[in-house]
Amino acid sequence: MEKKIKVGVIGATGMVGQNYLRLLSYHPWFEVVFLAASPSSAGKKYIDAVAGRWHMSEDIPEEYRNIVVEDASNVSKAVGKCGIVFSAVEMDKKAIMALEEEYARRGFAVVSNNSAHRSTDDVPEINHGHLDIIPQQRKQRGWKEGLLVVKPNCSIQSYMLPLYALLKAGYRIDAMIVSTLQAVSGAGYPGPASIDIIDNVVPYIGGEEEKSEVEPARILGIIEGGRVIPDSSIKISAHCNRVAVSDGHIACCSIRFAGKKPSAEEIIGIWRNFSSLPQELKLPSAPVPPIIYRQEMDRPQPRTDRDAGNGMAITVGRLRPCNVFDYRFVGLHHNTVRGAAGGSILTAELLVAKGFVK
Amino acid sequence: MEKKIKVGVIGATGMVGQNYLRLLSYHPWFEVVFLAASPSSAGKKYIDAVAGRWHMSEDIPEEYRNIVVEDASNVSKAVGKCGIVFSAVEMDKKAIMALEEEYARRGFAVVSNNSAHRSTDDVPEINHGHLDIIPQQRKQRGWKEGLLVVKPNCSIQSYMLPLYALLKAGYRIDAMIVSTLQAVSGAGYPGPASIDIIDNVVPYIGGEEEKSEVEPARILGIIEGGRVIPDSSIKISAHCNRVAVSDGHIACCSIRFAGKKPSAEEIIGIWRNFSSLPQELKLPSAPVPPIIYRQEMDRPQPRTDRDAGNGMAITVGRLRPCNVFDYRFVGLHHNTVRGAAGGSILTAELLVAKGFVK
Amino acid sequence: MEKKIKVGVIGATGMVGQNYLRLLSYHPWFEVVFLAASPSSAGKKYIDAVAGRWHMSEDIPEEYRNIVVEDASNVSKAVGKCGIVFSAVEMDKKAIMALEEEYARRGFAVVSNNSAHRSTDDVPEINHGHLDIIPQQRKQRGWKEGLLVVKPNCSIQSYMLPLYALLKAGYRIDAMIVSTLQAVSGAGYPGPASIDIIDNVVPYIGGEEEKSEVEPARILGIIEGGRVIPDSSIKISAHCNRVAVSDGHIACCSIRFAGKKPSAEEIIGIWRNFSSLPQELKLPSAPVPPIIYRQEMDRPQPRTDRDAGNGMAITVGRLRPCNVFDYRFVGLHHNTVRGAAGGSILTAELLVAKGFVK
Amino acid sequence: MEKKIKVGVIGATGMVGQNYLRLLSYHPWFEVVFLAASPSSAGKKYIDAVAGRWHMSEDIPEEYRNIVVEDASNVSKAVGKCGIVFSAVEMDKKAIMALEEEYARRGFAVVSNNSAHRSTDDVPEINHGHLDIIPQQRKQRGWKEGLLVVKPNCSIQSYMLPLYALLKAGYRIDAMIVSTLQAVSGAGYPGPASIDIIDNVVPYIGGEEEKSEVEPARILGIIEGGRVIPDSSIKISAHCNRVAVSDGHIACCSIRFAGKKPSAEEIIGIWRNFSSLPQELKLPSAPVPPIIYRQEMDRPQPRTDRDAGNGMAITVGRLRPCNVFDYRFVGLHHNTVRGAAGGSILTAELLVAKGFVK
Repeated sequence: MEKKIKVGVIGATGMVGQNYLRLLSYHPWFEVVFLAASPSSAGKKYIDAVAGRWHMSEDIPEEYRNIVVEDASNVSKAVGKCGIVFSAVEMDKKAIMALEEEYARRGFAVVSNNSAHRSTDDVPEINHGHLDIIPQQRKQRGWKEGLLVVKPNCSIQSYMLPLYALLKAGYRIDAMIVSTLQAVSGAGYPGPASIDIIDNVVPYIGGEEEKSEVEPARILGIIEGGRVIPDSSIKISAHCNRVAVSDGHIACCSIRFAGKKPSAEEIIGIWRNFSSLPQELKLPSAPVPPIIYRQEMDRPQPRTDRDAGNGMAITVGRLRPCNVFDYRFVGLHHNTVRGAAGGSILTAELLVAKGFVK
Repeated sequence: MEKKIKVGVIGATGMVGQNYLRLLSYHPWFEVVFLAASPSSAGKKYIDAVAGRWHMSEDIPEEYRNIVVEDASNVSKAVGKCGIVFSAVEMDKKAIMALEEEYARRGFAVVSNNSAHRSTDDVPEINHGHLDIIPQQRKQRGWKEGLLVVKPNCSIQSYMLPLYALLKAGYRIDAMIVSTLQAVSGAGYPGPASIDIIDNVVPYIGGEEEKSEVEPARILGIIEGGRVIPDSSIKISAHCNRVAVSDGHIACCSIRFAGKKPSAEEIIGIWRNFSSLPQELKLPSAPVPPIIYRQEMDRPQPRTDRDAGNGMAITVGRLRPCNVFDYRFVGLHHNTVRGAAGGSILTAELLVAKGFVK
Repeated sequence: MEKKIKVGVIGATGMVGQNYLRLLSYHPWFEVVFLAASPSSAGKKYIDAVAGRWHMSEDIPEEYRNIVVEDASNVSKAVGKCGIVFSAVEMDKKAIMALEEEYARRGFAVVSNNSAHRSTDDVPEINHGHLDIIPQQRKQRGWKEGLLVVKPNCSIQSYMLPLYALLKAGYRIDAMIVSTLQAVSGAGYPGPASIDIIDNVVPYIGGEEEKSEVEPARILGIIEGGRVIPDSSIKISAHCNRVAVSDGHIACCSIRFAGKKPSAEEIIGIWRNFSSLPQELKLPSAPVPPIIYRQEMDRPQPRTDRDAGNGMAITVGRLRPCNVFDYRFVGLHHNTVRGAAGGSILTAELLVAKGFVK
Repeated sequence: MEKKIKVGVIGATGMVGQNYLRLLSYHPWFEVVFLAASPSSAGKKYIDAVAGRWHMSEDIPEEYRNIVVEDASNVSKAVGKCGIVFSAVEMDKKAIMALEEEYARRGFAVVSNNSAHRSTDDVPEINHGHLDIIPQQRKQRGWKEGLLVVKPNCSIQSYMLPLYALLKAGYRIDAMIVSTLQAVSGAGYPGPASIDIIDNVVPYIGGEEEKSEVEPARILGIIEGGRVIPDSSIKISAHCNRVAVSDGHIACCSIRFAGKKPSAEEIIGIWRNFSSLPQELKLPSAPVPPIIYRQEMDRPQPRTDRDAGNGMAITVGRLRPCNVFDYRFVGLHHNTVRGAAGGSILTAELLVAKGFVK
């Protein structure tokens, strides 16, 4: 890529926004030129706007420090500056939708973390084909060049790719019971109070089980008549727990096949050989391989596996027969990279590769 | 009880032994008069034998401090001193079995934590009837007054009582998929290295899933011809995880009924009204009620619920429909009280109440 | 005490308020009859007002559940109901001061946690004599029966009693350098975000070092002309750290004596024999002994020692020579009991015993 | 460096050995060609010898997996293969000394972590001149080409460089009182039991305070007559605590100057501009800058600062006046990188740069 594509981050001072900036620093295709946040940050240099609230382990990358933050609600400020806008704004869901649609209307490719959108959830390795509804989206909404895509909920990432790899190999799965052990960073900042997490587990995360059960159907859905028809063939039951882990969601999965069942060796082979469009297109953020299978009997673990593939790979282990269903396994992914900003950046790369953004 | 029953603890210096001593301090029926451990502790006062290795939050109870510790392998030392021996010896499983059988042969009622025994696992609220095989056990082994009973694995306690209450109410369950989040104290001392648990989850506990799947059948089994015939009607699949919690095991359960299904209200009613022989006999360690159902959507949690009923109650919450099976719920118990020493003491109380120990 | 003294808690729905209620349940002298909080809670039963925000390990005590919460700013509601008001209101410091003074003006004995007050900080074992300025306080403020006393900052409790015991024994200390390792509950609820505490230490607590250095002088001060003259003879330098502990503050202290120096044996003897007016008056919350010295080389520790003396004792250990000053030691106390609600209740008991409250 | 220097690691299967291998992977100067461990590992491929005991976050680097592990006690096996041996053997101290001396006698440059050695402790930025006693060491011991250098205890690294920078700038310090909050990895593997660290602090680390007080004098010592004369001008008193942190030791320091005192600005300037021989020689592992001063009021923290300078930099913050001494500050370093294997590798680089290893 000779010349970098200019991008913006709205909601740039929050924790998700910071993750975007961290991951976009030195990105081979994208150059962050526009930062916006709430009115109270507007007019300040980024380093001042975020002072005392920078939560990343690495320092604020040099290139952002002196960018003057704009008011995110003032869409005009972004016009002419960038083509893609990563949205990490924190407002009530309706306000986010309205703002993001305004950006799309004004011609921006908006990549959003907002779960309120009805549009498709994108996991580039799985439903890259869903991006093909963008022309229809533009037509319906009357957008000329703008578009809006949404990343799915982080909790499902530990198993969606492993499940999809099996489906793609021709097997059918009709049920999964899954328990997740989710990191505190999944709740944003500040997230759970430390007094609630030290020496404790909270076996409840508001709205998470519902999303874990519903979103997979949308992601696996097919396009008909310009919209995504959910595929509900896998019934999912999710138990979501919050544990004392900083980053890295674990999913303990029991799955049942419909029809023929692969052997364990076959499953591991399918996972290890899995590759998809992002890998074929050599997208910069696409992990190679996307799925890592670990032989050790006590893996994956958050500390040792969350950073695999620069935080973009899914690590799977402990494949073994299930006494009730067919197989059990453990999946893990990095919830603030693969499950959040990193996943969105991969989607943006796919938008570029598919020609939806110039 | 006018006069207390004299009891001994072998393996008294280890962590399980310490738990026994803590719980037996001021017990209304039992008086600890005999402490034994490895040869290296023999001849020392208990306070000196355990120096630097006492892991309980409360101090060593006064009454044990000056008891001179005996060599546990020298069974003669216990003869004439006590009738019940709680065994928490830490050796290889075969050696434990041999030693405990020797104590039984010499006339002691041995209550053991050793998973190697083939005999029944006792959960007093469930299979109190299993104690009726003791006459047969004595006959087969040629023991006159001795006997040997074993407490089951701690991981299953969070769901066995809730499941049993439903069975007792006339419902049949044919499948359960369960994920446990288990406390580090369940691994004994020292248990997991802190570097492996800080900011981490270990999705594997050696042998735990197998025990979680097999022991329930034995506990629910019926007696025929003087021995326990396992009841394998509930197929169980367990995923066992170690988490950064000191005490308190959580189980996330999805269950399927065979035949008629109770309503959620009915299930909660069954749990809340559940009572069993230990409660009817008013055994000192029997929790009243044995099952606590919490309405709050984020309970049970280890910190807030493990000490319910002095650590002997099972706390259940989050009963809700399951997308795949019929219902989901979360169970919790205190693994070193209900799941270990406390459960064994309750069994010993039942042995006394049933007249097996004088 | 034949008839219990009626008391109220304002700010009853917050975490400190909850701690008051937990500790006052079944108090032998006090009966909670009045609960007040913000307008949004007013008119609701306590159990409803606090729903989803009850953070104690034990359940809401039965006796409070149906008390209708009043608006704390409406002082008239309390008049005629109770004589003592424990204040745990959470507003800005000026507003708290104004409200508490209004309660005092209306005749209540107000026991406050608000660090904004200029009046004395009370540690009943140390400066019980400071309560003798109450007549002067009443005169200056024009209060007839009301009064206002304040509990000191929690961080200092781990060393104030040990230091005072040495002063009372006739020794003089002129310098202390102390590092504290403080529990997250000291920051109130929600306190630190769990992402900031997991696998981490925060070597800074806003305002804590200043309080740790200034308050001791007030507590050790003498009364002259109806007011407390600070005693600044001990220069204190404090380093305050937040660590991943739920409850229990540790202080690592190096102290220098002025003039003669006691031997280590002498110091331990002074601590072990220390007793003060609350103990002599047998106040219900006075720990006996107030200072516990542990011989084990690795004590005190939060988990094992915070609950000593029902959370009201100070545990000290590791007394040893200091290479730079004279001695080093480690002190520990339970910050939400001794260091907060429990300390205030002890002060209220002393007010009763001294006849300031009828 | 055209051709890499061949090195070996003895004790290669333990945790410190693993850290060496991790840090030496792709080292620009060194190539690991020799791995040795206990007899039970001898003859196995490294990947098999370390199976189930690899504790690093990253996988075993490819280049080591198939190296056949030798018996470390068989020094002949190393002869002719490598010139430098990093020693991380875990035996009793005397046995380690004997073995390491045997390697030195046979001509190897031995870089050791063993605190039992009487020889100098090397912090390359401070006492690089101490290496000049190597000719004397060789002469005394009768070693021709071999030599033996030792890395100092990890606890002191958080403050030694900041103190030394001030001394080098011409100031004199005569006293420091320091409290450390040390990570569990500092205790090796397995280190503290998780039950002792969850929701807890252990205010004691065996031998650590003594080392923290004694080693600085050796490091700051001068060479006279071919040996290091300790410089005890700084009296140090250390309080060492173990906290629930994986990696990264914090030190809270109060220091007193003798003679003239620098201003705070001056101190920060000295730290920021500090550079030493390893930086001048551009040694591959030398951090640039070696000392990082953070302005944020709540830094340094283990999670955010331990990896600064690839884990080799010392991060300092919170410089402020001390009420008792002159200044207070907080220092932090990565105890298993700078404080262990990384520090030793830097020393080895200095040995090469100074011509002691060919």
